[in-house]
This record gives sequence, structure tokens and C-alpha cells, in this order.
Amino acid sequence: MHFETICIIGPGLIGGSIGLALKKRNLARTIIGVSQRASSLEKALKMNAIDIGVSCIDKAVKDADIVILATSVNQIIKTAKEVIQLMKSNAILTDVGSTKNCIVEQITQNIRSDVAFVGAHPIAGSEKKGVEFASPDLFEGCTCVVTPSQLNHTSALDTISCLWKLLGAKVIYLTPEQHDKILADVSHLPHLVASCLINAVKKEYLSYGASGLRDTTRVASGDPELWVDIFDQNRENIIQSIDQLMVELTGFKNDLLHKDNTTLLNRLRMAKVSRDSVFHNNSIHQKNQIKE
Amino acid sequence: MHFETICIIGPGLIGGSIGLALKKRNLARTIIGVSQRASSLEKALKMNAIDIGVSCIDKAVKDADIVILATSVNQIIKTAKEVIQLMKSNAILTDVGSTKNCIVEQITQNIRSDVAFVGAHPIAGSEKKGVEFASPDLFEGCTCVVTPSQLNHTSALDTISCLWKLLGAKVIYLTPEQHDKILADVSHLPHLVASCLINAVKKEYLSYGASGLRDTTRVASGDPELWVDIFDQNRENIIQSIDQLMVELTGFKNDLLHKDNTTLLNRLRMAKVSRDSVFHNNSIHQKNQIKE
Repeated sequence: MHFETICIIGPGLIGGSIGLALKKRNLARTIIGVSQRASSLEKALKMNAIDIGVSCIDKAVKDADIVILATSVNQIIKTAKEVIQLMKSNAILTDVGSTKNCIVEQITQNIRSDVAFVGAHPIAGSEKKGVEFASPDLFEGCTCVVTPSQLNHTSALDTISCLWKLLGAKVIYLTPEQHDKILADVSHLPHLVASCLINAVKKEYLSYGASGLRDTTRVASGDPELWVDIFDQNRENIIQSIDQLMVELTGFKNDLLHKDNTTLLNRLRMAKVSRDSVFHNNSIHQKNQIKE
Repeated sequence: MHFETICIIGPGLIGGSIGLALKKRNLARTIIGVSQRASSLEKALKMNAIDIGVSCIDKAVKDADIVILATSVNQIIKTAKEVIQLMKSNAILTDVGSTKNCIVEQITQNIRSDVAFVGAHPIAGSEKKGVEFASPDLFEGCTCVVTPSQLNHTSALDTISCLWKLLGAKVIYLTPEQHDKILADVSHLPHLVASCLINAVKKEYLSYGASGLRDTTRVASGDPELWVDIFDQNRENIIQSIDQLMVELTGFKNDLLHKDNTTLLNRLRMAKVSRDSVFHNNSIHQKNQIKE
């Protein structure tokens, strides 16, 4: 048994999948799920994603060796401040938030000297929400970003890295700043573009859309509340990413206006080469998934 | 047997799929494929998408009851002008081009009085190219736009509508102008956005992209040559669609700048409601596919 008691605060899509993945691999002796919603706990218990479900953070946290914050990003900091006071000595606090700058900064400022905090973000998920969509294989082959800080005890960093590797993820280390810049480009920008695209299409035309429109806008079906919090926490980087996209769109529009098919063709070729180099397997059944 | 001799000019992804679909349903006595590329004809013959493969248009066209132009959009008009002179009396000419305005206008101006032309566009396909990706079920459940004109003989219109229904498509009638406006929004705009998005992401960040970026940009892996011709033929409508998108993006950016999370949330909610109302089944395995 790799881990004794793991506490998952917020057993939803990601938290529930962590529970299921730990169970499947027989990695933890006890998994405690914490939620204010009785229905979430019931579902998580029924799916066997957690062993114990409680609504009271005090009880759930005090014996845990690892506490995983898996709530929406705007809840993580608030919950962390509460949890830190309750944790046992030498325990590890970690999170799975889609943004890292605010979260890591705030939690690091509030951490106790005898408790370690290691920020993390498994880049996995779907536009679906809730433990009912959790899967024990969600992290298989995904990238998990871990954000080491000077305050991290090496052993805590190793433990969290080890946890994600055991769940099937490829672990990479980035600073919170690097993480947020990258995610603004590869995840937050695609999300807002998808939403803008749907809103830009005339309502009466939407029903003519087929797989192109469907896939280009899939992420726009994600949870609006969850996403507005992500945008809120990565505001500056996302504004920069929007500006980059505007430059591209303006270039494209100008080529159309000036009937410059040569430059237009080059844009399309460049995009194809870039995309094909990253998504070698063009299949939409590819395994890696990003949380959005 | 519904049809005697059908000639498919350009047996690629779409043309090849028509051949396979006709064969599977036993709808045509003879299917003739025309291509300048011997390798395409060989593949189409091997896959049993066509009965006869020829490089010479004269021979292929003269006995055909229906001639289907399935080349790239910039070849359709040129090929049509050549084909019209060679067709037998009372035969029907049709196409599968992703744009309709230019094509229908040009061909209608050049059609013979004893030959009918009916424009069509089966909204089906993928980012893949070539007969090797053809499928007999590609049109199953897809929408096929047919563009009637005053010059159309009713019987020719019925024949082409019937053909697409037999291949599994839902047939709708639009004017070429309506078609091109709609497709600019639901297909051409998503394509150019996908390409711009990939080009806007910093090269060194691309490898961090997962399913969100992958799906949002899938269509950017389509054939650049094919797409530059589509953009060329639907220039004005696409420019308008870009402008609509720019308005949305600017609004989104301003909400971020002004920290107006309420409006931001409304944008995301509106997008989710619109998208979910069209793509009820959020699955990426949905059947309908658009050619792009």
C-alpha cells in the first residue's frame, strides 16, 4: 500500500476520478471524500470512488496523510486556509486547480511550517461535470503539471509526483507563472474562442452545423461558473492570448480583403503543419484529455 | 435499379463515398470514375467505389445519365464547362461543392437547354483527404443542401434529391446565396478560427495542448489547397463572419479588462445553452459530419 489515508475535498469529475484510480490500483488504505452536497457523496460512495463520505471538513482532514483540494478554482484558496489549521503534522496538502499563480501564492503564504503544500494540475478532464462522469483511467497518459516551490520539502514533492505517476500521468515541473502562461494559450484561449464562435454564429444558422462546428465548440459546453473563475484567475495572460489571436484573425481578414491567396495558403499550411506535429494521431478518440 | 450510368468526376473522399454508397445500396448499374491520377483510379477500383476508371472525360461522360462533379471547388466550374459539351441529351449534371454561389451562377450560364444542372452540397466529410478515407455510410444522417433554380426541370431536381435521400442524407432546399451565408458561419468561420488559433499559440507551448486544443483545432488539419479555394469563393460572407466573431472576442476581452465577471458569465452561459441545443449528444462520436 503506497498511501495510508487520502482525503479528497470535492469528489467531482477530477476528485472522483482520483478516488477511482487509487482504488483500481489499490494505492490507498482509506479514501475520505468531503462535500457539502449529500447527493455527490452518495454517488461517489456508490461508485466506490471513496470509502467514507463526510460533510464535515474537521473530521475528514485530521487523520489524512494527503489532502487533495479538488473543488472549483475559486473555492480552493478559501478551503485551503480552513484545512491548513486542521491537518496533522507532516501531512501534505495539494490541489488540482486549472490555474496556479493565485492558488500557489495564497496557499504558500498561509501554510504551516510542519505541513507541506505542493501545487498540481492534471491536464485531464472533459466538458462534463460531476462524479458520474469520473473514470479510473482519466489520468492515463495525461500530463500533470507540478509546481515546486522553495518551501517544498523534497519528500513532499516526491510523494505528490509519485502519486500522479502511479495514477498514469506524466509529471512535469513548471513554475506557477509558466503554467498559467501556457494554459492561457493551450486551454483557456480555445475555451473562450469556442464560446465566442457559438455566440457569433446567427442563431437560425446553428442547426446547419455539423462535425466541424461541433468539435470546434465542444468545450463551450463546459460549466460556465467553473470557467468564469478560471478566467478570473488568469486574466492578464488570457488578455495577451486574445490579442495574439486578434492579430491572426486580422491578418486572415486582410488577406481575404486583398485577395492575397498566397499568404492565405501559407497561413493554412503553417497551421496544418503545427497541428499535425502535435496531434500526430488525428483521431478524435485520442486519449489525452484536458480539463475544460 | 434506380440509376443506369453515373459518372463521378474526382473519386476522392466525397466522390469515392458516393460510389461506395451507391454500390452498397445497389442503386446504379454502372459507375464510372474519372481522374487524371492513375493511383486514385486504382485505389477507387480496388475499393469497389467505381466499376470503370478512366482518365479521359469524353468517354466517361458521353453515356452517363448523371454526371457528378466531385473535384475541389476551384476545378468544378472549369470541368463543368468541358463536360457540358460532351453530355448526352436529357442527362443531369450535379456537383458536391462546398460553395454554391459562384458554381451555380457560372454553370447555369453555360448549361445546354437539353441538359439539366442541379447544384448540391452534402454537408459531410472529414479533415481527411482521398478515396482511402471514403465510406459507404458517410452521408448517413447528414444534411444535403440542394439549390433549385428556375432553369431546373422538376424531374432533374427530383432525381438529384432522390439520389441523396437514397444515400442516407436529409435533403433541404436553399438558394445558393443562403447556402453560402450559412456555411460561412457554421463551417468556413470555424475552419479559419481553428487555423488562426493554432497559429496564435506559441510554438513551444503547443505540446501542452490536450483534448480541448485538439478538438477546437481539428479542422485546421484539413487540406490547405482545398480550403483556400473555398475561402476564395465565399470571400464576402466570410469577412462578415470574421467581423461578427471579432465583436464577440472584443466583448470578451473588455469584460476581462473591466473585471466584469457577470457579463462574462452570461456570455459563457449563452454559448453553452446555444451549443447544447444544437448538439444534444455532446459525444464526439456523433454521426453527422461536415466536409472540411
